[in-house]
Amino acid sequence: MAIDYSTSEGSKYALIDADRLWHRHVEMARYGATPRGGVNRLALTQVDIDAHVVLAEWAGERGFSVFVDDTGNMFMRREGSDPEAAPVTSGSHCDTQPTGGRFDGIFGVLAALEALVSIEEAGLVTRRPLEVAVWNNEEGVRFTPSYMGSAIYAGSVALDSMLAATDSDGITMGSAVLALKAALPNAAHRPLGSPIAAFIEAHIEQGPELEVAGETIGIVTGMQGTRKFSIEIAGDEAHAGTTPRRHRRDAFVEAVAIVNALHELFHDADDTVRFTIGQFEVFPGALAVVPGRVSFSIDFRHPEQETLERLGNEVEPLCQRVVERCTVSVSEPSRAKPLRFTGLVPEIIERAVGRRGYPYRHIYSGAGHDARHMAGICPSGMIFVPCEKGISHNEAENASPEDLAAGAQIIADVMVDLANRD
Amino acid sequence: MAIDYSTSEGSKYALIDADRLWHRHVEMARYGATPRGGVNRLALTQVDIDAHVVLAEWAGERGFSVFVDDTGNMFMRREGSDPEAAPVTSGSHCDTQPTGGRFDGIFGVLAALEALVSIEEAGLVTRRPLEVAVWNNEEGVRFTPSYMGSAIYAGSVALDSMLAATDSDGITMGSAVLALKAALPNAAHRPLGSPIAAFIEAHIEQGPELEVAGETIGIVTGMQGTRKFSIEIAGDEAHAGTTPRRHRRDAFVEAVAIVNALHELFHDADDTVRFTIGQFEVFPGALAVVPGRVSFSIDFRHPEQETLERLGNEVEPLCQRVVERCTVSVSEPSRAKPLRFTGLVPEIIERAVGRRGYPYRHIYSGAGHDARHMAGICPSGMIFVPCEKGISHNEAENASPEDLAAGAQIIADVMVDLANRD
Repeated sequence: MAIDYSTSEGSKYALIDADRLWHRHVEMARYGATPRGGVNRLALTQVDIDAHVVLAEWAGERGFSVFVDDTGNMFMRREGSDPEAAPVTSGSHCDTQPTGGRFDGIFGVLAALEALVSIEEAGLVTRRPLEVAVWNNEEGVRFTPSYMGSAIYAGSVALDSMLAATDSDGITMGSAVLALKAALPNAAHRPLGSPIAAFIEAHIEQGPELEVAGETIGIVTGMQGTRKFSIEIAGDEAHAGTTPRRHRRDAFVEAVAIVNALHELFHDADDTVRFTIGQFEVFPGALAVVPGRVSFSIDFRHPEQETLERLGNEVEPLCQRVVERCTVSVSEPSRAKPLRFTGLVPEIIERAVGRRGYPYRHIYSGAGHDARHMAGICPSGMIFVPCEKGISHNEAENASPEDLAAGAQIIADVMVDLANRD
Repeated sequence: MAIDYSTSEGSKYALIDADRLWHRHVEMARYGATPRGGVNRLALTQVDIDAHVVLAEWAGERGFSVFVDDTGNMFMRREGSDPEAAPVTSGSHCDTQPTGGRFDGIFGVLAALEALVSIEEAGLVTRRPLEVAVWNNEEGVRFTPSYMGSAIYAGSVALDSMLAATDSDGITMGSAVLALKAALPNAAHRPLGSPIAAFIEAHIEQGPELEVAGETIGIVTGMQGTRKFSIEIAGDEAHAGTTPRRHRRDAFVEAVAIVNALHELFHDADDTVRFTIGQFEVFPGALAVVPGRVSFSIDFRHPEQETLERLGNEVEPLCQRVVERCTVSVSEPSRAKPLRFTGLVPEIIERAVGRRGYPYRHIYSGAGHDARHMAGICPSGMIFVPCEKGISHNEAENASPEDLAAGAQIIADVMVDLANRD
């Protein structure tokens, strides 16, 4: 199906190496490998830092230079013919969910690195420099919120408050960034917000559409908007054996009442709303103690801003209405509008996919990605490759070597096109 | 109100020292003190071991000998005139809930120690030895189940399986017992199940009845039966942004459905049922991941065996009926029938309270206590003293020095009576 443009003498495109790409996925999956075949590589933990070091070594082998910024983003750079030009950048993230898979994030990093390596091997000269970005803490598990590295780089959130974010052990993001820098002593400093000419991100779909349709590439048209809430219910701890129901202020019982009302509010007949309670913690968490405190999260996503506004704005009034003897507080640590990718990058992607002859479709992203924040500062776009059964954020996550190779080929072709434009 | 029998020359009773008793409570509250004025002293943690060492020092100052058994119970012994006679024992536990108070458990230990010290100071000779018992892991927080030390001592549960119990860090109860023994190098070995002539336990009420009625002593008539369940729901982890509701196997959503059905089942109009979900854990516990697993606990107590059977036997069928796309498993790690204290010890308690003239009542215990297991191997009884507002298993737990002293006085008097009987 695929047409190899790079084998003809003097092609302007490079041919990526599918075997090398696959073996680098296998190698990366060792860092944080779980017994069930997944990956647990939270942002800037030792295994994540180790993975960064290996990526930097692979870049160094080809003479690419490595940079780190103050928020733990890493960049690997192949120079262009115009040393003053802003780079064309591709990449994604290296961190995973605690029971994550082998492809979410790291595929976008390895596809971009494979693009640079194959372009280097082909001896192609581009006007603009080419860069691989490894955005820090995309998953937002170890430090909240998610997309932290790309959001800070793009100026969407303030650096200082993010560096003060702490993990469950009280370690700040700031000290975790220092640990990364210490592990990369030869990396140069990259100022935050340094200009980027254009950005493209490759990612597994994390949904079933491409696989079901037998298509190789999804050209991403946009991303759902998101609203994330933290709810905290405070009651009184009491003895489970001696305290009658009428004297309890049971934070768990009232939290469940709130959850029931939320499930009702967010239930839509057409199943477009994405409503998830992924974190739910009970304190003190002892068998014989009536809970005095519960905190839980809401992850709410929708493609339409009007629905995000309408339902999201109901969360706090609902909580206050349902709670009886306890008190409840609601905060909204992050919020993002629905996004559309338009213009230069999606057009160039579509031409590249057409030249290679891959079956493709336009596809809307249910997940959020770093490209969201890049779209605020430069022409941006994304491609998806199929993800087995649509399973992601799960140790069983899988993708085929052939599909990953096709995605990396498009990244290589698009980077060349973008880097030779004015 | 109280009549001091011990000041008359040659009294057979000793007078306890209320100041010493109070100051020892203040001293003990330092081990595991929390910022909000409570105590976090889980079984055989370093602070709990430190507290045991101080108790053993206080015993040593009076020439009492110290023993430790293989399950981490500690005994402090004042010899009697008949070296072959089984001891009269009083005591309770030293461990607390994670956000526990300054009196739950430790009062029963300090009241018994104060009884022995005051009897020693009065120069009284008893036929039987007197002992203070410090039962290990009563709360069952660090290691499951609760009442572990007294249950093993009484032969209610097997030693080996209990020593294999692990805490959340994977440390076994067995290695924790070795740490206690290492900290008490001069303690002699006490074989499990060594005979006890009679047992009496003093405890704060953990309910409001005595305070409301203005009474000082509760003579405990019995204890509720308990059934404790562990419920585990297994679904599939999935991406919160991309996975539609119809494709989810959300363990949290189904756990909440089960909880709703349980709340309905256990709701009784007269508020006699004690039903508590104190532990509820969601995995992997990440904002953007549909939960793949939930585990939660049920603590169910009732004074009537028939109700314990009927409602408790409904738990598993209910779970299986409510669950839809997930799977659910139910286990019952502990179960105890309702208990009645009758015979010798309650009679002697009532006479002692009458002699001292303390206002009292007979009272039923909502909470479980170590005396439950002692009642299986020797004549046993309990007394309660008032507990401010009935608040317990809470850092705000409080009791008055006067009430604690009255309780300790009854323990001293009852131990003397019991120790001089045949």
